[in-house]
Amino acid sequence: MHKLQRIANTIRGLAMDGVQAANSGHPGLPMGMADVASVLWTKYLKHNPLNSEWPDRDRFILSAGHGSMLIYSLLHLSGYDLSMDELKNFRQWGSKTAGHPEYGHTPGVEATTGPLGQGCGNAVGMALAEKMLAARFNTPEHKLVDHFTYVIASEGEFMEGISHEVFSLAGNHQLGKLILFYDENYISIEGDTRITYTDDVEKRMEAYNWHVQRINGHDYDDISAAIQAAQKETSKPSVIICNTTIAFGSPNKAGSHEAHGAPLGEDEITLTKAALDMSPEKFFVPEEVRTSFAEVAAKNRQLEQAWNNLFAQYLTTNPEQAAEWESCLRGDIPADLASKIEDFEAGGSMATRSASGRVLQDLAKAVPYLIGGSADLAPSNNTYLKGWGDVGKDSFEGRNLHYGVRETGMGAIMNGIQLHGGFRVYGATFLVFADYVRPTTRLAALMNLPVIYVYTHCKSSK
Amino acid sequence: MHKLQRIANTIRGLAMDGVQAANSGHPGLPMGMADVASVLWTKYLKHNPLNSEWPDRDRFILSAGHGSMLIYSLLHLSGYDLSMDELKNFRQWGSKTAGHPEYGHTPGVEATTGPLGQGCGNAVGMALAEKMLAARFNTPEHKLVDHFTYVIASEGEFMEGISHEVFSLAGNHQLGKLILFYDENYISIEGDTRITYTDDVEKRMEAYNWHVQRINGHDYDDISAAIQAAQKETSKPSVIICNTTIAFGSPNKAGSHEAHGAPLGEDEITLTKAALDMSPEKFFVPEEVRTSFAEVAAKNRQLEQAWNNLFAQYLTTNPEQAAEWESCLRGDIPADLASKIEDFEAGGSMATRSASGRVLQDLAKAVPYLIGGSADLAPSNNTYLKGWGDVGKDSFEGRNLHYGVRETGMGAIMNGIQLHGGFRVYGATFLVFADYVRPTTRLAALMNLPVIYVYTHCKSSK
Repeated sequence: MHKLQRIANTIRGLAMDGVQAANSGHPGLPMGMADVASVLWTKYLKHNPLNSEWPDRDRFILSAGHGSMLIYSLLHLSGYDLSMDELKNFRQWGSKTAGHPEYGHTPGVEATTGPLGQGCGNAVGMALAEKMLAARFNTPEHKLVDHFTYVIASEGEFMEGISHEVFSLAGNHQLGKLILFYDENYISIEGDTRITYTDDVEKRMEAYNWHVQRINGHDYDDISAAIQAAQKETSKPSVIICNTTIAFGSPNKAGSHEAHGAPLGEDEITLTKAALDMSPEKFFVPEEVRTSFAEVAAKNRQLEQAWNNLFAQYLTTNPEQAAEWESCLRGDIPADLASKIEDFEAGGSMATRSASGRVLQDLAKAVPYLIGGSADLAPSNNTYLKGWGDVGKDSFEGRNLHYGVRETGMGAIMNGIQLHGGFRVYGATFLVFADYVRPTTRLAALMNLPVIYVYTHCKSSK
Repeated sequence: MHKLQRIANTIRGLAMDGVQAANSGHPGLPMGMADVASVLWTKYLKHNPLNSEWPDRDRFILSAGHGSMLIYSLLHLSGYDLSMDELKNFRQWGSKTAGHPEYGHTPGVEATTGPLGQGCGNAVGMALAEKMLAARFNTPEHKLVDHFTYVIASEGEFMEGISHEVFSLAGNHQLGKLILFYDENYISIEGDTRITYTDDVEKRMEAYNWHVQRINGHDYDDISAAIQAAQKETSKPSVIICNTTIAFGSPNKAGSHEAHGAPLGEDEITLTKAALDMSPEKFFVPEEVRTSFAEVAAKNRQLEQAWNNLFAQYLTTNPEQAAEWESCLRGDIPADLASKIEDFEAGGSMATRSASGRVLQDLAKAVPYLIGGSADLAPSNNTYLKGWGDVGKDSFEGRNLHYGVRETGMGAIMNGIQLHGGFRVYGATFLVFADYVRPTTRLAALMNLPVIYVYTHCKSSK
C-alpha cells in the first residue's frame, strides 16, 4: 500500500471511530479530504508540533470545522500534545476534542471554526498579516517571514456571502501565499448541493483573480503537483478544487448526505475498514504511519532550527528591527500610553467620532504595529491614519487597510490578522451595521482576541 | 435635445436641487444613472402610478437606496402621490422623502433600501414569488402573473456578501425575469473602488449562470437594446453592467468621490445646469417632460385595463382559482386555524423542534400559500413540508424552498417574497446563526413584514 494511502486510511479510521464513540459528529469530510490532508501535512506543511508558537510556521485552518476529526487526527499523528485518549473522548465535556475546533483550547488549532466561511476570512487575514510583516521585517539576507497559509473549505462555505467578501479582497491584494483547498463533493445537509447551488466555481474564483486548479482529490500525484504549482504562483492566491467523495471508502455511505453529520454505524465501519484493507481494530495507528510522521517531525525540527539560526543572525545584524519584531509579537504597549493621547474636555461639543479619530492618530504614533481601516467609511468613521500609507497589492508596509463594503469579511479578516500575531488591528463601520459584524465579533470573543471595533454615527438619521 | 436626454437632465436637476436644499444626501448616483432610469421608466416599466397595488405591475427596486432622489424624482414625474413640495422637503422630518427610500411610507417604493445589497435580495425574492405565483395561477389563456423585476445596484452592493448569496440562488433557479442594472463608476466613499475591489464582474455573474451585458450607461440606444435582450432571455436572470460617470454632467465633480455623498454646492449646480443646457431654475420640470410622462401614464393605464379585463374573464372561467388568488393576495387565514393544529401536552418530553415541525405540517394544510425552507438545515430544523414538493428551476409549484447555506440571503429573499405578495414565507436555521439574519430581520421589522423565522437548537452544543 502507498505510504500516503496508509496515512489517509488511518485518518479515516480515527474519524469513523471517534464519531462512532461519541455517537455524534461528521465523518464524511475527514474521510473525503484525508488524501489531500495527508499529502499536505506530510510533504508540505512547515510547522513544529513541539512549538506551536513558532512565528514563521505555515498556518493551517480547517475552515470546514465540522470535519474536526480530520484536524484532531492530524495533530495527534504529527505529535502535538493531543493524546489518543483525547481522540477517544471526541465531543466529551472537558476533552480537548470539542465538536468543532477551538482556538486556545487545543494545541495546533489556529482558529475556532464551525460557522461556515469564517475560517476562510481568518486565512485571508493571516495571509495578509504575513505580507505586512514580511514588508516590515524581511531584508534581502533575512527572510524572517516567509510562510504559507493553507485552508480547507467546503461547499457550504462557498455558498456563504463571507466567502465572496474575503476572496475578492484576497484576489485584489494578490495574497499569493494563500492556498485554499475546496472540497467539492456535491453533498450538503439537504442532499445534492445542486438543488440550490450550481456556481461555476472555476469561473467565480478566476473572476476574483485567483489561480485556479481542479484535481482528483484522491490522487496523490495530482494533489502534490497542485500544491507545488500553487506555491509557485506568488502573485495570486490559489484555489485547488478537489473533487472528492464524501465518506470515501464506505461501501454503502460514500457519496451520500447520510455520511455528512452522523456516525456510519458499527457495521458500516467494519465493512469500510475491510474495503480499505485496514485493521478492524478501533483507533488503530499502524507502526509505519507513526514512523512516517516521526520523519516529518524531524524534517520540520530542522526547518525551525534553521529559522532560529537566521533570527540569531538577524539579532546581530539588525538589532533595532529585531527588537521591534519581538515587541510587536509580544504586543507591547508603552507604559505611559495614556500620557501620549490628547485630552478632551468633558461635556465639550466635539463629535465623538472626531475625538476618536484624533485619539487614533496619537495611538498610531505610540503603537507602531497598530493598523486598521474601515468598511469603505473611513472619511465618516474618522479612522484614516494620516501619513502612514495604505495597504494594497504593492504596499504592504502601509497601515491603512481598505476593507471595502464588506463588514462581515472585515470582522473575519481582523480575527485572522490578530490570530497570526504581529499587529493590533481595528475595523470601522456605522453602528447600524454592527449587525453584519456580530458573527465575527462572537468568534473574536470566543477566541479572546483583542480586535478593536470603531462604530460611529450612533444616532444620526441623516 | 433628445426627449430622453431632457428627462434624464430633469432628474439630474431635481437630484442636485433636493440634496442641496437638504444640505445632505447623495447626488452622484441619481446623476450617473439618470439615463438608464429614464429609458426604463418611460419605455419599459409596467406600472400604474394611480394604483401602486396592481398585482401584475413590474417591480422596481433602487437597491442602492442612498441614491434616493433618483426614485423620488421618477415617482413624482410618473404621477405617484409625491408632490413637488415633497421633493423640496427631501430628508426633512415628516416628509415622504426620507434619506433612504422607505416601504409603506412613500407610494411606489417597493422596498426599504439603504443597507447595501439588501434590495438585490428583495428583488430575487420578488422574481421568485412571480415564478411561484405564475406556476399556481397562470393558464394557457390567462397569464395572470407575468411581470419583470428590475433592480438598480451599485458597486458597494456587489462587494457585499449578500450579493453572492442571492445571485447564486437566482442563477440556479433560473429567474429569467429578473433584470439588474449594475452601476459601475469605480467610485466609492474611500475613493477609487479598485484599491480593494477588482472583480471581473462579467465573469463572476456568468459563473452564477446569469445573462451578462455591458453597455455605456449614457447611451440611450445601448440601454434600450440591452433591456430588450434581457427581457428576451427568460431562462437566466440578466445583469446589465452600465458604465457610467458618477455625477454625470458636473464639470468639476463628475467622476469624483466628492459627488457621492455631499451636495455639489450652488456654484457647481449652476455650472452643471449650464453645461447640460438646462434652465437654471430650482426644481424645474420642463413642460415637454411632463407631457412625456403623461403619455407613459396613459399607455400604462391601458396595460392595467387589459389586465383587469383578463382577470374579469378568469373570474368566470376559473372561479376557484380566482378565489384562491384573491385569498392568497389578501393573506386570508382560516378563522378556525387553532383547531386545525395538533395540541401538545404541557411539560411533555418532545423536543420543541419536533413539535414545531408537526405544527408546520398542519399549517401547510390549512394555509395553502404558506411556503418556506431552511438554510440547508431542514432535516435538523424540521421544516420540510412533507408531500408538498420542492421549489427549483423546474418546479415553481412546490412549497419547499432550498435557500442553501445562505442565512443573510435567506432573510432578504424572504422579505422580497413577502413584499411581492401572494405568500406567507418562513426560513429556518440554528439559533446561533440568527446573527447572520439580524440585518434582514431589522429591515423586516422596519417594513412591518410578517415573515416567519424558525430557530432551533437553542442550547445543544452537539
